[in-house]
Amino acid sequence: MPHVVVVNDEGPDEEVVSILGESGVATVSESMGRTGLLDPCIRPIYRGAKIAGRAVTVLSQAGDNLMIHAAAEQCRPGDVLVVATMSPSSDGMFGDLLATALQARGVLGLVIDAGVRDIADLQAMGFPVWSRAVSAMGTVKATAGSVNVPVVVAGAYVRPGDVIVADDDGVVVVPLELAKETAELAPRRTRSEEEKREQFRNGELSLDVMNLRATLASLGVQYVDGQGRALPDVSLR
Amino acid sequence: MPHVVVVNDEGPDEEVVSILGESGVATVSESMGRTGLLDPCIRPIYRGAKIAGRAVTVLSQAGDNLMIHAAAEQCRPGDVLVVATMSPSSDGMFGDLLATALQARGVLGLVIDAGVRDIADLQAMGFPVWSRAVSAMGTVKATAGSVNVPVVVAGAYVRPGDVIVADDDGVVVVPLELAKETAELAPRRTRSEEEKREQFRNGELSLDVMNLRATLASLGVQYVDGQGRALPDVSLR
Amino acid sequence: MPHVVVVNDEGPDEEVVSILGESGVATVSESMGRTGLLDPCIRPIYRGAKIAGRAVTVLSQAGDNLMIHAAAEQCRPGDVLVVATMSPSSDGMFGDLLATALQARGVLGLVIDAGVRDIADLQAMGFPVWSRAVSAMGTVKATAGSVNVPVVVAGAYVRPGDVIVADDDGVVVVPLELAKETAELAPRRTRSEEEKREQFRNGELSLDVMNLRATLASLGVQYVDGQGRALPDVSLR
Amino acid sequence: MPHVVVVNDEGPDEEVVSILGESGVATVSESMGRTGLLDPCIRPIYRGAKIAGRAVTVLSQAGDNLMIHAAAEQCRPGDVLVVATMSPSSDGMFGDLLATALQARGVLGLVIDAGVRDIADLQAMGFPVWSRAVSAMGTVKATAGSVNVPVVVAGAYVRPGDVIVADDDGVVVVPLELAKETAELAPRRTRSEEEKREQFRNGELSLDVMNLRATLASLGVQYVDGQGRALPDVSLR
Amino acid sequence: MPHVVVVNDEGPDEEVVSILGESGVATVSESMGRTGLLDPCIRPIYRGAKIAGRAVTVLSQAGDNLMIHAAAEQCRPGDVLVVATMSPSSDGMFGDLLATALQARGVLGLVIDAGVRDIADLQAMGFPVWSRAVSAMGTVKATAGSVNVPVVVAGAYVRPGDVIVADDDGVVVVPLELAKETAELAPRRTRSEEEKREQFRNGELSLDVMNLRATLASLGVQYVDGQGRALPDVSLR
Amino acid sequence: MPHVVVVNDEGPDEEVVSILGESGVATVSESMGRTGLLDPCIRPIYRGAKIAGRAVTVLSQAGDNLMIHAAAEQCRPGDVLVVATMSPSSDGMFGDLLATALQARGVLGLVIDAGVRDIADLQAMGFPVWSRAVSAMGTVKATAGSVNVPVVVAGAYVRPGDVIVADDDGVVVVPLELAKETAELAPRRTRSEEEKREQFRNGELSLDVMNLRATLASLGVQYVDGQGRALPDVSLR
Repeated sequence: MPHVVVVNDEGPDEEVVSILGESGVATVSESMGRTGLLDPCIRPIYRGAKIAGRAVTVLSQAGDNLMIHAAAEQCRPGDVLVVATMSPSSDGMFGDLLATALQARGVLGLVIDAGVRDIADLQAMGFPVWSRAVSAMGTVKATAGSVNVPVVVAGAYVRPGDVIVADDDGVVVVPLELAKETAELAPRRTRSEEEKREQFRNGELSLDVMNLRATLASLGVQYVDGQGRALPDVSLR
Repeated sequence: MPHVVVVNDEGPDEEVVSILGESGVATVSESMGRTGLLDPCIRPIYRGAKIAGRAVTVLSQAGDNLMIHAAAEQCRPGDVLVVATMSPSSDGMFGDLLATALQARGVLGLVIDAGVRDIADLQAMGFPVWSRAVSAMGTVKATAGSVNVPVVVAGAYVRPGDVIVADDDGVVVVPLELAKETAELAPRRTRSEEEKREQFRNGELSLDVMNLRATLASLGVQYVDGQGRALPDVSLR
Repeated sequence: MPHVVVVNDEGPDEEVVSILGESGVATVSESMGRTGLLDPCIRPIYRGAKIAGRAVTVLSQAGDNLMIHAAAEQCRPGDVLVVATMSPSSDGMFGDLLATALQARGVLGLVIDAGVRDIADLQAMGFPVWSRAVSAMGTVKATAGSVNVPVVVAGAYVRPGDVIVADDDGVVVVPLELAKETAELAPRRTRSEEEKREQFRNGELSLDVMNLRATLASLGVQYVDGQGRALPDVSLR
Repeated sequence: MPHVVVVNDEGPDEEVVSILGESGVATVSESMGRTGLLDPCIRPIYRGAKIAGRAVTVLSQAGDNLMIHAAAEQCRPGDVLVVATMSPSSDGMFGDLLATALQARGVLGLVIDAGVRDIADLQAMGFPVWSRAVSAMGTVKATAGSVNVPVVVAGAYVRPGDVIVADDDGVVVVPLELAKETAELAPRRTRSEEEKREQFRNGELSLDVMNLRATLASLGVQYVDGQGRALPDVSLR
Repeated sequence: MPHVVVVNDEGPDEEVVSILGESGVATVSESMGRTGLLDPCIRPIYRGAKIAGRAVTVLSQAGDNLMIHAAAEQCRPGDVLVVATMSPSSDGMFGDLLATALQARGVLGLVIDAGVRDIADLQAMGFPVWSRAVSAMGTVKATAGSVNVPVVVAGAYVRPGDVIVADDDGVVVVPLELAKETAELAPRRTRSEEEKREQFRNGELSLDVMNLRATLASLGVQYVDGQGRALPDVSLR
Repeated sequence: MPHVVVVNDEGPDEEVVSILGESGVATVSESMGRTGLLDPCIRPIYRGAKIAGRAVTVLSQAGDNLMIHAAAEQCRPGDVLVVATMSPSSDGMFGDLLATALQARGVLGLVIDAGVRDIADLQAMGFPVWSRAVSAMGTVKATAGSVNVPVVVAGAYVRPGDVIVADDDGVVVVPLELAKETAELAPRRTRSEEEKREQFRNGELSLDVMNLRATLASLGVQYVDGQGRALPDVSLR
């Protein structure tokens, strides 16, 4: 198991990334059959950011951010840095200094299954982070790890070159080979939701719009009054 | 254990609900002898919302939001939807589409012992949610559950028609039969606190205002200096 | 184990406190060899507050805030109240009434290893709190505890008179005897970071600025391409 | 909200309790449509105990076991004590002394949504406990609570007189009015499982025994080889 | 994202598996550079089991065990079933009935990132399980998933055919392509530890045996007495 | 903050330690006014061990066990090793090799606010450990820390030379200066409990033995029947 920095040029098409970013995390995940989501313990340090980009991955010893420094060099404009640790940690492995270096290289944001610090500065400079914790606990630079190897981060498997989409709802990874197909499906889903939204706004019920009364009936759900007496004609309600 | 949708018309008096809402969660809970609170893991998705309304309850299979759709039809203006799951879940069972449907019916907000998504949209449309998690994980519509049956939600027992009060401090349920009495007690408590607040603002000590020096003395609490020597005349301080 | 209220006049130099506050939590902790931090479960109830002050400590029975009332009298302008409980608790032991009393005495804020309530009011009045939980659950005033004794709070050992620094990143305690030395080291660290920030902004890599390429080499980290073939001349990159 | 000790003589039929106890937690819960289970955080302090009995309930202030003492008097042979607290707590509210008192009255065991201590002694004397935590933290006897009122304990609603079944899998509550019906359904379920167990032991597949191949097909699950090529005749496998 | 059951015949050499099983989880993980471990939240339901086998993987909807039934057919003697869910769940997806079916097919045990039930029966029949939770909560058989696809289980990436080693310390996955190499390295590590164990038993210090005094000196660790005075000649101690 | 190994010869009287060990964790903590307990997340890796000894303390970088090796040399027969980490960690910092070295020096056991591994071997050799986690995750030996400095471990403040008592209920620390007094108080408490135990065994109620009926009355607790009607003569029951 040698420690390596992999120089990876592969990645998704720019337009594909753009569409996935506009679609947002929930829609992208739905378009992949409800897969790809990181665990909901990963939360943004501030609200309102919405990014999509190519994943540059880091596998670090817990409490050691040496490999994040190594990863910075591998980042190109439009990338998103994704950091996993070898064992669980909440240490603040990343702060405004590293963010400055990454922002200078055009990196869009960070997803880290550990802690982050200097969050007031990060918000001021507009560098979004999705993390497991906020912690001022500093780290050493003493142990080897790897850059651009496949990692498991918060329950999701991320390979370098995959697409990361992140917003207020969390983070989703789109495998590179599914990116194009997903970028086609997601906007359709968005449009379909817009139609429903309009119907709901006009007072229509999802029971009717989405034909769920039949489902309820087939599952044996009964309509009753407060005394448990069956109600007739519920289908007409 | 058949699955039912109960059509429930019972509920609290409008003025009672209004008073409870103005009183806020902490004061209402205190007025009921420090009872009725949901577990503090239930947090608002955005700050500043403050609602009170009649509970419409849902008991769902984890990972399945079919019964929330069924519940929408049972909601009237001023209601608050309360969702419990049969086993622990953080899935995002609710998003902006369902919120649009509920808002069109006059529903004030949602309390859910699971996850929620589309939180940027929910905040933009002013539909407050108190939830255990934020998660983009979608759900199926495949399993039966019930609407308007009593549920345990985040450690509290809620029946349809009870009053739900929710604000930045969390969520409290007022059993329907206690609503009127609580609406009488809560404002008194608020007034009493206002008097104390004025005294405290003027520099008076709660030890004096609330007569706590006697309590300390009766419990044997001693005043000492840094070397552990008893201090005389503490009562005069 | 008698219960005591210790009248403590010792504390840090005002200028020392001011420097520590400006330095911020992360820098202060780093200047003490990455020590002194409270567990990251302690979070601010609102963003943007940044305080430093002398610790007045409270050790309370869980679910009982009597000793916080006793502690108020021991507070001077510029102090920070630090509350530990004898067993784990999330109850809302502190609210806007106590905050009004403390603010009238010049107290800067509260650090509590339990819950807090009335957070909308606390934010409106500008009284910052760092807590483990937000909970409307009220407390009794029935059990003895102590004021100004050493306490363990969220994993950190705090003695009365120590310096507390708190901001969006969390909370750090500076032992009184280390305060002066830390106040000398922290600004140097800040200046050094400012230099690096400027270099990073100009596109320099931390690998070069901080001389980390040598570390990577000494640890045996290899640069390879996507097929695992060693890359020559990585030192020149 | 006055504090009361309710003298409750109601309870389930002895034979019903006996059948439910033999059926075990999982089977009983299934027979009630997968309801009634306490949260799995409630674990037995030692393995191998299996009890069923009438619930005597306690609602206590966290960190205060006064009402457990009051409840002892309300217990009859065959009862199970069920303790909830007003706010979350892990304190060791119960130990071998109280267990001795309860055992002398014929109480079968304890279910407590808090901590327990003296667990070596409790195991030695054969008094089983299902609890959220093991903790040596003692409690006071200073605050009022209630006995034999409905409580929410670890997410389940328990009323005095309901049936509690507990074994290595956890704890389930059977509402008194469902006890008889459940005691009829559970043994049928046990018998049906025994038949299946025999079939499985003989190498039959649940896919066939339980007719699940049709379900898989209707859900569109495909059988493929390692290269993703559809496999013919899977129905024959 | 179609749902598939992959018929997979690949897997590790029998002798390799046997060596890995004897080596145990800690030694195997160390031999792979401290990688491959599942999160320590995965614990055995009883102590003393120690298994190694080929992974058959399952990806299930939370709260639905249909695909475990489908997986049984894909299992051969010596396999270990590995179950992941699409979202976090503690439901008891597996019990003694399924264990009987698997044991009849020669399956050695189960690793599941969810709950398990009937643990007394499982222990009695000698079918070991490593799980996140014990829960009597039953599941439905209503939703599609997949068998023998790569899964993330408790933070580890497992593909069908990989080797699973599990004992009282937890669970480790050995990627199929590393299995042979690891089976060579692990026994060397075991022998090296046996030598050290003998030395330690004879009173030698690890500081000397493992040459750590030099490390301490190079890191600047100082030996001092209780008053902080440097101690001379520590190297001689 | 230099890193040091303090050579500490101070410690408690042997007989004092022996009495505290016999008294057990719960009784010792009660005798100190319910103080000194470590957080209940610290659990024994096997049941039945009961130890008391002088604390030798270690403060380690998370994921690095170098200082445990350094601490071994500082241990004398009858000592208990106490390990804290600078940030939260579940890594298995300790296994059977280190245990062999410590056991050879007469060390009684380990208390560690992190993980431990090789637990089957540790149980077989009779070396008890109280830990936060069981984890096979190995550690490096690369970072400085300290031995025999005061540490916070699982919420308790432990100094070298303090007494550690540990059993199935958890762990308590007795400050050296309180050890003698506590060793006098604890056996009295044990005797008092034995008397009560005898009374309870004979069917007396704690309400009477401990005079708690008066407390209930003074707190306003009322005895009522199932319909809420006050019951007369409860004092006679």
